[in-house]
Amino acid sequence: MTLLYEGKAKRIFSTEVEDVLRVEYKDEVTAGNGAKKDYIEGKGRLNNQITSHIFNYLKENGVKSHFIEQISETEQLVESVKIIPLEVVVRNIAAGSITKRLGFDKGHVFDEPLVEFFYKNDDLNDPLITDDHIKLLHLASETEIQELKASALAVNQQLLNLMTDMELRLVDFKIEFGLTKDGQILLADEISPDTCRIWDAHSDTNFDKDVYREDTGSIIEVYQTFLNKLEAHK
Amino acid sequence: MTLLYEGKAKRIFSTEVEDVLRVEYKDEVTAGNGAKKDYIEGKGRLNNQITSHIFNYLKENGVKSHFIEQISETEQLVESVKIIPLEVVVRNIAAGSITKRLGFDKGHVFDEPLVEFFYKNDDLNDPLITDDHIKLLHLASETEIQELKASALAVNQQLLNLMTDMELRLVDFKIEFGLTKDGQILLADEISPDTCRIWDAHSDTNFDKDVYREDTGSIIEVYQTFLNKLEAHK
Repeated sequence: MTLLYEGKAKRIFSTEVEDVLRVEYKDEVTAGNGAKKDYIEGKGRLNNQITSHIFNYLKENGVKSHFIEQISETEQLVESVKIIPLEVVVRNIAAGSITKRLGFDKGHVFDEPLVEFFYKNDDLNDPLITDDHIKLLHLASETEIQELKASALAVNQQLLNLMTDMELRLVDFKIEFGLTKDGQILLADEISPDTCRIWDAHSDTNFDKDVYREDTGSIIEVYQTFLNKLEAHK
Repeated sequence: MTLLYEGKAKRIFSTEVEDVLRVEYKDEVTAGNGAKKDYIEGKGRLNNQITSHIFNYLKENGVKSHFIEQISETEQLVESVKIIPLEVVVRNIAAGSITKRLGFDKGHVFDEPLVEFFYKNDDLNDPLITDDHIKLLHLASETEIQELKASALAVNQQLLNLMTDMELRLVDFKIEFGLTKDGQILLADEISPDTCRIWDAHSDTNFDKDVYREDTGSIIEVYQTFLNKLEAHK
């Protein structure tokens, strides 16, 4: 079981089964592309449980992903994919970088969900890129770009259904996709409060990493509350 | 003749004729969104003459613009349009901001011409925006976006023909468009060494504002040489 990759929040290991990887969620949390960094016990467990729950929910609703199964509190098995170096962001409500970048007021509800692509490149600070940039950088073809957008919007619709049922507002989220050996595009990485903005429908409470970014509470309490809500929904 | 608008490089006045404006080119030069600023005598005259020449050339080759006629060394008459707040950039070769933003090497020749849109907004520092941002900001419709791209590429093709004849390489340029009273989209603003990158085909010489940005020579000598080449071509 070789360590294949270690990122900010996860370690990825090979397994005895070809094309099956083991993902271990770490107790580390970072913000601002690593500018702020902490070790918070229990955070890996929560994100592994939440991501497993959400990927299972998506699968039940027709959205495939690399997720196979949760195997321990902090670990899951996933299908091996070659990650496409794009952060795919879907926004229903303006918050975070887009308020500074384009001047939308925080809380502005977009006419329709917005899909943005950012080039995963730490040296360049993950810049926003257009469809034409993606093609010139040979990151994806026009057909793949359209499939990524359609998949991102399908994930958004399923998450909106789930969150609305939970009396939450899905503000935005970031997902990643990978290519299987036979060239199929699969949803990959994670979906957790680390990668989403989730607001309470009836109060100013939020259930996401902004609690850490903005020092407004305990990430463990907030993520645990969100997990409890998810499990209660099921 | 009321002053309607004063920008970094031009003043715009009303005339006695409805929907006809007088543009006066100023002897000011700025770079880095106004961070660097100088008064350089003769620069307004050169850009007025060069823009007039290029807009006439484009007209002869089937590309309409707001340009009516040059009326003095520093002045031209144009049709009144409502400027669409987008800087439309066309790139044939990587240089300037895209080398820092996306890591392309300076001099990299793109597989095909790249069109980029920047939101004209000084407070936001003219950010790059995608087609979906343009629609959400209600700056242009999908049809108008496609027309802007096609027009920008048509201008590029005509300028490439001209520059190639002049043994120059057209690296990139920025144009703006405006809407006439009847909703027609017209090429507007200026096309000059202030808004283009132009390299010599056989040497490292350049004929554009990078001479000023990078302090590598006299902007007046360089712009005058470019104007002489343009007039010799005619």
